[in-house]
Amino acid sequence: MIDPRAARNFDQCEAYSNLRKMNAPRISQLLTAERVHVFDVDAGGGLRFNYAARPVTAESLERLSDLCTEQRLAEQFKALYEGYVMNVGEERKVLHHLLRGRLGSSVSEEGRDIGAFYREQTDRVAAFARSVHEGRITGSTGKPFRTVVQIGIGGSDLGPRALALALEGHAVTRHGHSRLQARFISNVDPDDAATQLYGFDPETTVFVLVSKSGTTQETLTNEKFAVELMERYEIAGLVPRKHMVCVTSESSPLAHSSDYLDAFFIDDYIGGRYSATSPVGGVVLSLAFGPEIFEELLSGAHEADSAATRPFAENAAMIDAAIGVYERNVLGYPTTAVLPYSNALQRFPAHLQQLDMESNGKRVNRRGEPVAYPTGPVVFGEPGTNGQHSFYQLLHQGTDVVPLQFIGFRECQREEDIEVDGSTNQTKLNANLAAQIGAFALGQENSDANRHFPGNRPSSLIYGESLTPRALGALLAHFENKVMFQGFLWNINSFDQEGVQLGKVLTKSILGGEELHPALRSYAQLLGVREE
Amino acid sequence: MIDPRAARNFDQCEAYSNLRKMNAPRISQLLTAERVHVFDVDAGGGLRFNYAARPVTAESLERLSDLCTEQRLAEQFKALYEGYVMNVGEERKVLHHLLRGRLGSSVSEEGRDIGAFYREQTDRVAAFARSVHEGRITGSTGKPFRTVVQIGIGGSDLGPRALALALEGHAVTRHGHSRLQARFISNVDPDDAATQLYGFDPETTVFVLVSKSGTTQETLTNEKFAVELMERYEIAGLVPRKHMVCVTSESSPLAHSSDYLDAFFIDDYIGGRYSATSPVGGVVLSLAFGPEIFEELLSGAHEADSAATRPFAENAAMIDAAIGVYERNVLGYPTTAVLPYSNALQRFPAHLQQLDMESNGKRVNRRGEPVAYPTGPVVFGEPGTNGQHSFYQLLHQGTDVVPLQFIGFRECQREEDIEVDGSTNQTKLNANLAAQIGAFALGQENSDANRHFPGNRPSSLIYGESLTPRALGALLAHFENKVMFQGFLWNINSFDQEGVQLGKVLTKSILGGEELHPALRSYAQLLGVREE
Repeated sequence: MIDPRAARNFDQCEAYSNLRKMNAPRISQLLTAERVHVFDVDAGGGLRFNYAARPVTAESLERLSDLCTEQRLAEQFKALYEGYVMNVGEERKVLHHLLRGRLGSSVSEEGRDIGAFYREQTDRVAAFARSVHEGRITGSTGKPFRTVVQIGIGGSDLGPRALALALEGHAVTRHGHSRLQARFISNVDPDDAATQLYGFDPETTVFVLVSKSGTTQETLTNEKFAVELMERYEIAGLVPRKHMVCVTSESSPLAHSSDYLDAFFIDDYIGGRYSATSPVGGVVLSLAFGPEIFEELLSGAHEADSAATRPFAENAAMIDAAIGVYERNVLGYPTTAVLPYSNALQRFPAHLQQLDMESNGKRVNRRGEPVAYPTGPVVFGEPGTNGQHSFYQLLHQGTDVVPLQFIGFRECQREEDIEVDGSTNQTKLNANLAAQIGAFALGQENSDANRHFPGNRPSSLIYGESLTPRALGALLAHFENKVMFQGFLWNINSFDQEGVQLGKVLTKSILGGEELHPALRSYAQLLGVREE
Repeated sequence: MIDPRAARNFDQCEAYSNLRKMNAPRISQLLTAERVHVFDVDAGGGLRFNYAARPVTAESLERLSDLCTEQRLAEQFKALYEGYVMNVGEERKVLHHLLRGRLGSSVSEEGRDIGAFYREQTDRVAAFARSVHEGRITGSTGKPFRTVVQIGIGGSDLGPRALALALEGHAVTRHGHSRLQARFISNVDPDDAATQLYGFDPETTVFVLVSKSGTTQETLTNEKFAVELMERYEIAGLVPRKHMVCVTSESSPLAHSSDYLDAFFIDDYIGGRYSATSPVGGVVLSLAFGPEIFEELLSGAHEADSAATRPFAENAAMIDAAIGVYERNVLGYPTTAVLPYSNALQRFPAHLQQLDMESNGKRVNRRGEPVAYPTGPVVFGEPGTNGQHSFYQLLHQGTDVVPLQFIGFRECQREEDIEVDGSTNQTKLNANLAAQIGAFALGQENSDANRHFPGNRPSSLIYGESLTPRALGALLAHFENKVMFQGFLWNINSFDQEGVQLGKVLTKSILGGEELHPALRSYAQLLGVREE
């Protein structure tokens, strides 16, 4: 049905040629109240995606729809969720959608129902979390767990951490408190673990070790760091590894060891940066906030996945992807900013940075040939209104144009607000958000060039009622699907990451005392790693 | 002596034309052990700046030196620190260097010694912090302060917050604990204050309200938020504003009010993003870690400032600035990543993002004329090794080249480390850092294009023995001075921020019920700010 290796390069698409021939519209001239209402589409999970302030017309949207048809986005997505090998370089299926619901027919391999396996693991996570919350599973000295510390890096850290920060306020509002306090250790820098474990209570702490391969340098050394610290307390009866659960693949060295309290499994079809809805995110989030909250997150993600199967005109992720490619390849904008007007999403941009840049920061197509066009942009961002007092100066008046992805919610999460000068802080927050969209799009003439705002700076807005687990799941999945669609458009493999290998090899050479390029040896000496 | 309004545009420089005529060198061919030792210069404060892996030759460095001469960087810096009005748009002096030591002759205005005023405020901050630490100043119910919460946004938040995170481990190692726990509230989003103040103890908390103008919307509303929360506790004798000190200008509404516990002053010659070494950073850092640690930070910053007065070949900040401009304007790279291999610097990139993008994200020169060349790049970053498992894929194998600014230290900060497989985690951290510099510069051939690393990706390294307050101060000042020099090279005003105004005006219009552009009204309606 679909052979990713036979797919067409982006620059061979007729629709791309047609788009290049069209004049870029001026957003400030297009933007009307009617357009704000019309260029607005359901994104699933209670979210809507508004693209009225992006540089497209009805006509260019038709060409973008053609482009998606030419690159067979709908068919490729279907092939992906039905279990075709879409991660061609690594010869793997790509099944993170199956973690949160079935989009197509069931996926099985050698008679094994993979969806049932994922469901079984999610159920085991929920049962484990309930046992911890109800005191049936405790620390090795019999005390209930109060803190959960995730040890993982990259996809085992950024997504779960961003979600934990995003859910905390919701959990507090709903239950009065988090069930366990969540902490995260990722960096091999010993200062990271030392900071997170400063003054911790070994008896009431449970660690979640997350490494699909079970061989990640950072995660294994931080595990030993935690064990050493626990042993230093010399608490009678304390067994450090009975305070640790693993999330790993069934074939990893961490799996099936009776040393640990428990283990939960994922497989090779769940990529690290797409794993937040697997036990990689599920264990820590279920322990911290309750499995029912994690289940709502999964539902929201599934709703957004379903929305991504709709025809172009109703498909928020596909429209977002296609306009992003237009901005990148036709208009030539090299970066994208993610700007959530919700402080709870403070680390969501860091997750999207990995998701997008690691997926689409590629220079070869799925046949392994270098491509002749720009692929994934640099992605960065901070919450508003903080960013307004920081880097927005460049966004408004810099020499480069940066397309913006705003996120906003009508209500705040913690239900604590005050009214000052006739409006609440939440109202002020959203007034700022609306004002920024307007300012970027419309600009403002001024005879003093230093006070002139050129405008015509594109933005979109994803918005909803409030940042619930369901909305958060949908937000996560929207961007996963957007990134996937962009990979299909560019004909690149969004699911491997060969670019991380060389650094690992050279690190090993340095630590192993092997012969090095002389310059590399000099750098190692500067940093105190090799003798002079 | 210097008239910034008469300065030459960057593209009129002869050296720039000469640089454009030269072929860009391939770093992989240039990089030798000797070059690593030679292209390495003292940056002040115990730091060194290594630029061996940046795309310059002895010849192009000469042209860059010519460029700095042509644009009179040394003279402009001297004029700046001696009090000429270098912030031309706002008609202000630029005096943050004077906060940490005198570089030239004294600066006075209408007979007033400005350096003495700054010193007086720094001394007052130190005395205040000592009184708090010694229990002579307490909360209004007589209890000692244990937590300090800074309320400020932008420059009143990002720099102080990044420094507080960076100093915590040092303070713990030196004193066994922080003196007060530091927290920060910035966003107008009510969820920010609600999160930071969740379960706080009003009796032992001191707030630092930071707003130069005394009119910042976010800071004033968060002040009221804190007061309301404190009042809700109904603690007998508790006077909320006697738990608040202000950092503001002498003419602001916050100054000289006897409502507050105390006030410390800055003036218009300290820009927000350059204010971390003023009481804006000084109060919270001195309370949290002790005034002696803040004083060491100032010394380190002053050492880097002094290093920035040296001739080009010995001037780390000037070399860094000039090569950055070469990468931006000749090689055409639109972004820069800041990659500290020190987890304590986790929010330092967010500070540099403001510092750089707000200073140099400008499209007009100092005469107010639009310029025809790119100015400040997009700046982003996360600590290594975290970034290696995230966005480094794009850095290694993406279609765009991103120049990198690595930061590293030989020793960890908290003196807690373990040895695993024959090396400590700190050694592993630095082996990773050296390996990355090598991988980016040298690349690696592979017949499988997906595993091919093109290399020739530029990076520099700022490194030192350990992240002390002195090193941190020098690091801060190095980047301030680099950004300043780049502004001089581009002939732009790095000290104003007119680009933040339009958003403020439109926000006020929305909140004030004024007539709006119909599209803006629609956005306000979507977000629940205006009635449908």
